[in-house]
Amino acid sequence: MTAPAIILSRPQLGENIGSAARAMKNFGLSDLRLIAPQCSWPNDRAMVLASGAGDIIEGARVFQTAAEALADIRVLFATTARGRDVLREILTPEAAATRLRTAALEGLKTAILFGSERAGLDNDEMSLADAAITIPTAEFPSLNLGQAVLLIGYEWLKSTDATPATRTRKTVAVPSSRADLIDLFEHLERELDAAKFFYPSEKKEAMVRNIRAMILRSRLSDQEVRTIRGMIVALVRNKYRGAS
Amino acid sequence: MTAPAIILSRPQLGENIGSAARAMKNFGLSDLRLIAPQCSWPNDRAMVLASGAGDIIEGARVFQTAAEALADIRVLFATTARGRDVLREILTPEAAATRLRTAALEGLKTAILFGSERAGLDNDEMSLADAAITIPTAEFPSLNLGQAVLLIGYEWLKSTDATPATRTRKTVAVPSSRADLIDLFEHLERELDAAKFFYPSEKKEAMVRNIRAMILRSRLSDQEVRTIRGMIVALVRNKYRGAS
Repeated sequence: MTAPAIILSRPQLGENIGSAARAMKNFGLSDLRLIAPQCSWPNDRAMVLASGAGDIIEGARVFQTAAEALADIRVLFATTARGRDVLREILTPEAAATRLRTAALEGLKTAILFGSERAGLDNDEMSLADAAITIPTAEFPSLNLGQAVLLIGYEWLKSTDATPATRTRKTVAVPSSRADLIDLFEHLERELDAAKFFYPSEKKEAMVRNIRAMILRSRLSDQEVRTIRGMIVALVRNKYRGAS
Repeated sequence: MTAPAIILSRPQLGENIGSAARAMKNFGLSDLRLIAPQCSWPNDRAMVLASGAGDIIEGARVFQTAAEALADIRVLFATTARGRDVLREILTPEAAATRLRTAALEGLKTAILFGSERAGLDNDEMSLADAAITIPTAEFPSLNLGQAVLLIGYEWLKSTDATPATRTRKTVAVPSSRADLIDLFEHLERELDAAKFFYPSEKKEAMVRNIRAMILRSRLSDQEVRTIRGMIVALVRNKYRGAS
């Protein structure tokens, strides 16, 4: 599956091209194209800001017109700040990423077009896109070019990423057996009984239920069960010492 | 609903604190806290990079220890690069945002803790968090502090944002009536008939079906239907001229 090309139209600052390249590398994108860059090219500041993504800067292709840069693109989305008067479908980055992924899976070459830092995309460039992407923001909407590429790249990776929403390290992922838990419960309750903790006695049953629920909620590993049992032993030993 | 606090532990560069503040403002966050900043504070570079978010920098609170900075926080997530050996649940930014939103709706004060640029969070700090957040990346994982805050802030806004995944401007959102569409179809087909476009005639029915489907697919507005009818009139007029 081919990842989308990132196409920057008339970028003004090498720094921003560098940040964009770095953001691309963060999220598995590599095809960088520049339309009529307004800064010198090749550009030292771009290389510095790209940090570990110098290969993307070196592989970037420069075109003089949008028509040339877009020639092989079959699905094209254009980013625009909110409020632009375009007669066009507007997608969230997430919805755009899903469509780009679907197109890529069908073997279609896709791209996302970003305008210049100052002026964004002009109407001619917008008119070439299948849809617009607007990044949702709070009342303070200004995102710089590197940030916009970062968020779009992030959604692209997410759309192909199988990371579960929540997970735990292996050591925690294997919860202790019921046998060990029951041994722990009985050990703890025996010592608490000996210490006359359950008072008044008619409340014992409810108290035991609460303590067990509290322990179960933390989904203990085998090692953690052993640690707690050691703690109980230590505390009890200490108490006898104190009492002697 | 109170948005999460952003807590930066031992940040090294004013620039990064400024970028973080700007990203916060982009996505509706305002409570910035610093634990033992390693740069001078107040910091000019932070103000410059914050751009329109100077109020967040000015309102930032500085604490000497994590315990002080976190005192009022009831739900705390800590960001960590992948691979950290923490015995802790790991959330995607999206899952974390959902949980933060749920907690905030319950009136709980929440926060996200970010480590220093060089070393991240230490184990003591991690041990105070309810869960870790790891941002999914491609093989090139390094995100700077400002970028990490940007992505977390973006997911926070998304979790409260009602922007539909896809929408169109009002002018397009009102599709033309069937009556106008049928008039258009008949106008076009009448002129094509006159121009002997439908050949061989037994294919006419299928050709008409394809043309109608093509037109319907673009979900035309009233104005666009009028434009197309004008185009047909103009083309036909031109043809008669050419033939005369």
